[in-house]
Amino acid sequence: MDSVKILEVKKSVLEDNDADAVVLRDSLKGDGVLYVNIMSSPGSGKTTTLSAVIRRLKDELKIGVMEADIDSDVDAKTIQDLGVRSIQLHTGGMCHLDADMSRQGLKEMGSEDLDLVFLENVGNLVCPAEFDTGAQENVCILSVPEGDDKPLKYPLIFTKCNLVLVNKIDALPVFDFDMDAVKEHIAKINPNAKVIPISAKTGEGVDEFCDWLRDKVKEQKNG
Amino acid sequence: MDSVKILEVKKSVLEDNDADAVVLRDSLKGDGVLYVNIMSSPGSGKTTTLSAVIRRLKDELKIGVMEADIDSDVDAKTIQDLGVRSIQLHTGGMCHLDADMSRQGLKEMGSEDLDLVFLENVGNLVCPAEFDTGAQENVCILSVPEGDDKPLKYPLIFTKCNLVLVNKIDALPVFDFDMDAVKEHIAKINPNAKVIPISAKTGEGVDEFCDWLRDKVKEQKNG
Repeated sequence: MDSVKILEVKKSVLEDNDADAVVLRDSLKGDGVLYVNIMSSPGSGKTTTLSAVIRRLKDELKIGVMEADIDSDVDAKTIQDLGVRSIQLHTGGMCHLDADMSRQGLKEMGSEDLDLVFLENVGNLVCPAEFDTGAQENVCILSVPEGDDKPLKYPLIFTKCNLVLVNKIDALPVFDFDMDAVKEHIAKINPNAKVIPISAKTGEGVDEFCDWLRDKVKEQKNG
Repeated sequence: MDSVKILEVKKSVLEDNDADAVVLRDSLKGDGVLYVNIMSSPGSGKTTTLSAVIRRLKDELKIGVMEADIDSDVDAKTIQDLGVRSIQLHTGGMCHLDADMSRQGLKEMGSEDLDLVFLENVGNLVCPAEFDTGAQENVCILSVPEGDDKPLKYPLIFTKCNLVLVNKIDALPVFDFDMDAVKEHIAKINPNAKVIPISAKTGEGVDEFCDWLRDKVKEQKNG
């Protein structure tokens, strides 16, 4: 296995992150690249979900992955072994990524010829929601063991997402998790959010997420 | 059920949080109050663990709980129903508590006559580790579904803790979680940290955590 390419992202000097995110989003749209920001708590299954998706899509789409991590390279190694372009972004203790940090990563990895770039954000259900990364699509993963009350407790991240993946549904029998309740909570906060229950481990629901990604890639190229 | 007392904590104006935390810690020591800061990812079981502990200890110790939450009162209601003194701290979007915010909560709740005060910190494995709350003891909960690699990925919080509770061990049969590996990872980062595997749901291991708390309360009063 080759060693993982690591970029120590620098703290942004731009004061207006929202404006900068719009510029980045437009630029990616011009290149026909779909940029998807994946957010969740630590251990909700971001890397496992990405791995399952990449295995299904890597022969039809050119995929890149930016793995944001405070200072390890555990996930980047996993992703690199799947044979897609990847880079490790070290945030130097910072708890989120913003648009300029995204741009640094995209440039270093090389994204212009890609169809689909994922950012695996820092595992954190609070801070990443406050910073627009310039992604066209924001996806939140909530896993069954975390509990169905999380949209009530961390509402901001659920308002920012176009799609919520409810992961680890293979573990439903051992947890008190009410899927209808979680869907209701999400619908109240963000009526436009789509919810797909999945198990990244068994593969259940992953094809539906792949179909959603295929549609979004098409929109990005044609729209 | 009475309504939950809510305090909107104000952003601290003190520049030196570390120094302020020392002052708060000394003051609590003077009052013979043990202040325990509980940190974890969202959904690791902080509230369920506290509930299990409170049921076991509330007749022998005077307990207070500060529930930090971004803007809900889901957990505070659960704790209040157990019949101990409690207060909800709304952080107004902030992802952590610091010493001065702790002090605001302790003052509003009234802590001088208590033996043991818990802070249920914001569910976040990143930011709370960076701010000393003035607590004498820092406890981190890592739950089995999050995975045994978390000490590698979020090392700072594990260096700050005197005790790591590995929760949801009742779910071990359905997850690939290596308890020996997690203990090794923690020992490498923080050789002094004690690790107790528990299930807040079934009660397994909770008595050992209660014994640890009893010892720390005694130390605080006598030491």
